[in-house]
Amino acid sequence: MPAQLLDGKAVASEIRADLTDRIKAVRKRLGRPPGLTIVLVGGDPASEVYVRNKLKTAEESGMSVSLTRLGSDTSVTTLLETVEALNNNADVDGILVQSPLPEGLGDDAEQQVFDAISPAKDVDGFSPISAGYLAQNRAGFVPCTPAGVIEMLDRCDIPVEGKRAVVIGRSEIVGKPMALLLLKKNATVTICHSRTKDLPSVCREADILVAAIGRAGFVTPDFIKPGAVVIDVGINRVTDSKQAKQLLASQPKRLSVFEKNGSILIGDVHPEVVATAGQLTPVPGGVGPLTIAMLMANTVRAAELATDTKS
Amino acid sequence: MPAQLLDGKAVASEIRADLTDRIKAVRKRLGRPPGLTIVLVGGDPASEVYVRNKLKTAEESGMSVSLTRLGSDTSVTTLLETVEALNNNADVDGILVQSPLPEGLGDDAEQQVFDAISPAKDVDGFSPISAGYLAQNRAGFVPCTPAGVIEMLDRCDIPVEGKRAVVIGRSEIVGKPMALLLLKKNATVTICHSRTKDLPSVCREADILVAAIGRAGFVTPDFIKPGAVVIDVGINRVTDSKQAKQLLASQPKRLSVFEKNGSILIGDVHPEVVATAGQLTPVPGGVGPLTIAMLMANTVRAAELATDTKS
Repeated sequence: MPAQLLDGKAVASEIRADLTDRIKAVRKRLGRPPGLTIVLVGGDPASEVYVRNKLKTAEESGMSVSLTRLGSDTSVTTLLETVEALNNNADVDGILVQSPLPEGLGDDAEQQVFDAISPAKDVDGFSPISAGYLAQNRAGFVPCTPAGVIEMLDRCDIPVEGKRAVVIGRSEIVGKPMALLLLKKNATVTICHSRTKDLPSVCREADILVAAIGRAGFVTPDFIKPGAVVIDVGINRVTDSKQAKQLLASQPKRLSVFEKNGSILIGDVHPEVVATAGQLTPVPGGVGPLTIAMLMANTVRAAELATDTKS
Repeated sequence: MPAQLLDGKAVASEIRADLTDRIKAVRKRLGRPPGLTIVLVGGDPASEVYVRNKLKTAEESGMSVSLTRLGSDTSVTTLLETVEALNNNADVDGILVQSPLPEGLGDDAEQQVFDAISPAKDVDGFSPISAGYLAQNRAGFVPCTPAGVIEMLDRCDIPVEGKRAVVIGRSEIVGKPMALLLLKKNATVTICHSRTKDLPSVCREADILVAAIGRAGFVTPDFIKPGAVVIDVGINRVTDSKQAKQLLASQPKRLSVFEKNGSILIGDVHPEVVATAGQLTPVPGGVGPLTIAMLMANTVRAAELATDTKS
């Protein structure tokens, strides 16, 4: 029996529906809807798509949105001044600086920028104080992707307490916060990475496996305990025909989509895992929509915590 | 063959010896030695002992130390004012408010106080910004006990990269930072806790097992993969004769110490584990001295980063 596919779009709709009344209450109290501003530096094509989706969803949810565009030759100083102005703008509840920044800004530009965002407006949850609150189990902004995975598990009634959870990947944005959130929900959590020995056998310990690596089809069926819950965080664009044929050998429909378009999105989890897992998030349509839904939830929360500037 | 005992006192001496030149350099630059102030609220007998040991070690290391005593009826406001004054005192490099605070101060008093300590003087590493820096692999103050365990592993040439490490306990002060530090050193890390199912079998996966639970002798030989490195963070005073006899059945010498004194210190690791482990930290004399040594190291580091008030 193939795995049950966990429908991220449906869960994301539920999350957004639950925000409707909260958005109305913010409108009533502040005299304006929750406000999200995205700062986009340069013109990376993938970032353009992500930003467009975020703005569209926020607008459809009844929030006020704005996009601040800066050229790819912007200096870190200008970017920090932009963030500071948004920190001081009472109509902006949430600030998101789209990652990655252009390489020309230097290695530590992102960290400087994330450090500069007011903790009260840090809806991406990337500032050190947000990371600290998460580690200390305190209320704060949690990075959207791992927060979305937890919402998915909750809303699909997937038990976590007492389960073995394995997270592949230890990034600050996904892997580590994911591990901390699963720990908070009383899973026994293992974090794996590129230096893990015999990764497939460690992953086979998992009742819940979260893959956040960034390599198409990396997690093959031999990583999976039969019946496990498999959460695929990766979104990788495959353009190589040989790779696509290998990955999609068992899925002729998707292979024909690849052959038509010349590219296809593949998660970190190999498509054949569907035969071994108990439940699986598809790519696309799994974790992706949840990331955006949690950005909305974080922005609404920031607005709820914002001081009423009219009073 | 019984486990090799890892000598925490010897490693702590090494750490302190390595600080000598750095302390001299601080003296030369600032015209004064590194300064540590401990705030002790109330008169908890165990805290009195801990504080005395910390102050004594700091003094012997050539630092300037001071103790601020507040009565157990002190208000949180007074305590926060005390911390604020120390934040603003240029002669104080490190501030440590001894935990636990008297219960009368309320549940969130400790967190309020740790939040109030300037991140630049947070030598205990308990503030959210310190926790965030640790989660983000950035330079900051790391809680002394887990930092000491890492020093022990390093200085005893115990390889960590690629090993399975299991941490029992998920406190903000030991368990979680321990897991993050082992992860940073490229171990594959599992965090266990009271809701973990079949704890002994999860622990038997460990090449390196860290016990931070607070229950005397909880980790019995069936938790141990033969030859594993076992780090015992617990320091529990046993006063019950029946319990002491059970724990020390194989160690008649220590049992006679108990019978003479009416109490004995036992770690979280059962004394009989010495027959199964490859390497083991004793209690006392294992992790304890390292905790204090790392407090010294953190204070010297705070002084090194302090602005020269004379220039």
